[in-house]
Amino acid sequence: MYSQTVFYALRAVVFLATQSPVPATTSVIATETRVPRAYMAKVLQALRRANVVYTRRGVGGGVGLVKRPEELSMIEVVNAVDPVQRICECPLGLESHRNQLCGLHKRLDNAFAAIEEVFRSTTLAEILADSPDVCPMPLRDLVGNSNGDPSGE
Amino acid sequence: MYSQTVFYALRAVVFLATQSPVPATTSVIATETRVPRAYMAKVLQALRRANVVYTRRGVGGGVGLVKRPEELSMIEVVNAVDPVQRICECPLGLESHRNQLCGLHKRLDNAFAAIEEVFRSTTLAEILADSPDVCPMPLRDLVGNSNGDPSGE
Repeated sequence: MYSQTVFYALRAVVFLATQSPVPATTSVIATETRVPRAYMAKVLQALRRANVVYTRRGVGGGVGLVKRPEELSMIEVVNAVDPVQRICECPLGLESHRNQLCGLHKRLDNAFAAIEEVFRSTTLAEILADSPDVCPMPLRDLVGNSNGDPSGE
Repeated sequence: MYSQTVFYALRAVVFLATQSPVPATTSVIATETRVPRAYMAKVLQALRRANVVYTRRGVGGGVGLVKRPEELSMIEVVNAVDPVQRICECPLGLESHRNQLCGLHKRLDNAFAAIEEVFRSTTLAEILADSPDVCPMPLRDLVGNSNGDPSGE
């Protein structure tokens, strides 16, 4: 249902939130999130275009969060890479549904609204506060403690 | 976010619900739902495998709903073609998350639970009752009343 890209973007942003306000390199983010570097580079590019992260060159540079974790909601991350599809008009283009969706599309939009609400009402800081060992857990904490990264989202 | 297949499956089942208990041929379903016939044939195959629809050969045969619209929920249709992904275990396979998801995956699962709840609590009969001219509206009702089928879900 959800794209791999969404899961990877959230993992990247969660990792950056644990480091905030210190930026990290793409390689470090890819390693810590257990995502192939090339894939992660594309995810970070999308996040940068949406102004969720910044990139800074040079010593002490890297990728960092534009906002503080307290101000950044999950919906901003999700919408940067695979937006929640609200249904604003009849997908069949029916003239008679111009002002009101039918029962099918209304229910589908309700479902999308429900998922959007969960994402909109949750900040990255709340995710971190929920559990101190949030995914992706730093690799250094995992030695002898995990079976690696099946990464099977 | 959602696959085209889910939208097509729901349109097909809504159309069959409007005809229930009379079955319809794949060609008629494809035409009425404005979905390419080959694509619709695959969607119907998935719905048949999940026992949402039956197929009957011969005169008066075709594709029909196994259950009455009052007994068929949206979740059965969605799960037949593109199941809602609940997160039951840590996608990173972390041993320390074996018994409890972290804040990130718990929130994601909450979002999936919310969407699942909307689909689970809605029957096809309720969708039809919501609006008499539910999508897909029969083509015969559309003459001079629509701009065709952009089908842009």
